[in-house]
Amino acid sequence: MPASPTRTPQQERSRATQARLLEATVECLVEHGWSGTTTTVVATRAGVSRGAQLHHYPTKATLVMAAVEHLAERRAAEIRAEAAVLPAGAGRLDRVIDMLAAVFTGPLYVAGLEVWVAARTDPELRDALVPLEARVGREMHRLTVELLGADERTPGVREAVQATLDLLRGLGVANLLSDDSARRGALLDTWKRQLAAMLTGDQGTSPNPEASWST
Amino acid sequence: MPASPTRTPQQERSRATQARLLEATVECLVEHGWSGTTTTVVATRAGVSRGAQLHHYPTKATLVMAAVEHLAERRAAEIRAEAAVLPAGAGRLDRVIDMLAAVFTGPLYVAGLEVWVAARTDPELRDALVPLEARVGREMHRLTVELLGADERTPGVREAVQATLDLLRGLGVANLLSDDSARRGALLDTWKRQLAAMLTGDQGTSPNPEASWST
Repeated sequence: MPASPTRTPQQERSRATQARLLEATVECLVEHGWSGTTTTVVATRAGVSRGAQLHHYPTKATLVMAAVEHLAERRAAEIRAEAAVLPAGAGRLDRVIDMLAAVFTGPLYVAGLEVWVAARTDPELRDALVPLEARVGREMHRLTVELLGADERTPGVREAVQATLDLLRGLGVANLLSDDSARRGALLDTWKRQLAAMLTGDQGTSPNPEASWST
Repeated sequence: MPASPTRTPQQERSRATQARLLEATVECLVEHGWSGTTTTVVATRAGVSRGAQLHHYPTKATLVMAAVEHLAERRAAEIRAEAAVLPAGAGRLDRVIDMLAAVFTGPLYVAGLEVWVAARTDPELRDALVPLEARVGREMHRLTVELLGADERTPGVREAVQATLDLLRGLGVANLLSDDSARRGALLDTWKRQLAAMLTGDQGTSPNPEASWST
């Protein structure tokens, strides 16, 4: 993004420092997990002084919260950029699902899951994350609807999009410890046909073997 | 389970001590998460001496591995016991899905997820868990097929059962920080109708509004 003309050089430097800290936090979460992510390790990795780190994010909780928000924005931006070059038409749904599956089995999902699981037993972090989770979830849903060109006024379409995202969330967990791509690929091949039928609302109301789960 | 007549009293005591340690491990994981679960905390909670704990499970990794296996067995036993009293017939599929959803949003799933996420960045634990994960996954699949009375020779049925379990896994994650039961209930209501159609293999090949996702 181009720099806003109303920002001073000092503000620009602050933003750059913050961005480096947040990127380093995400990388730490992916590499070392929640317990291996400390503010000291993050500051070193970001090449930011301990003082500057404490100035911008005084605690691990504030750092991680900001990183999760940053992560969600980065993920949405990456998805939009990739989607912009996708062809319209017949193959689009398949490509969108492949793209989303890559996101839910990639490092950004893993970093988020580390924070989510840690927050479960950390009341302070949890209280801060709950509203953020709701917002990120809504945005992910909206983005998926947009990418699929789905019309949520069609009965069942909203639930079909939700089920797709929950399924992908589960496939992300199934991929945590080992490469689940072969099973996932086969499963998603059938899901894509199922989803295509659901989005047009013709499922179960017209004989359409092409759109069947079992074909 | 009744005690095997071939076991000595000493063996019986060992088994009881092990069971107490494994139950305490699961409880600790649920309450305090991975990082709050230490062998000392577990021994205290189980009312087992530190020496006895070290004798049976010398490291956190061996303790947690045994607990995960114990947890999977306990989960399967609980599901079977609940399923045994379910009525056959029309409402059975709905009840089976409700039961499985309760498992995937309950403490046993949460304890497992703590270990899975920790193992991602712990190579020793990860190597030990991968074969166990594969076995537990297969058993969960087989159990679900059995409970649903599904016939996997019908095309698409295997994938439908897999998708159901991956969806439930994702719904478990979505429920980690806040009560997602209202959204989950609505989503599963539509999923149940969808699944019923998929299991009979009639989906998309015959007009059947009752079995439609969108009704």
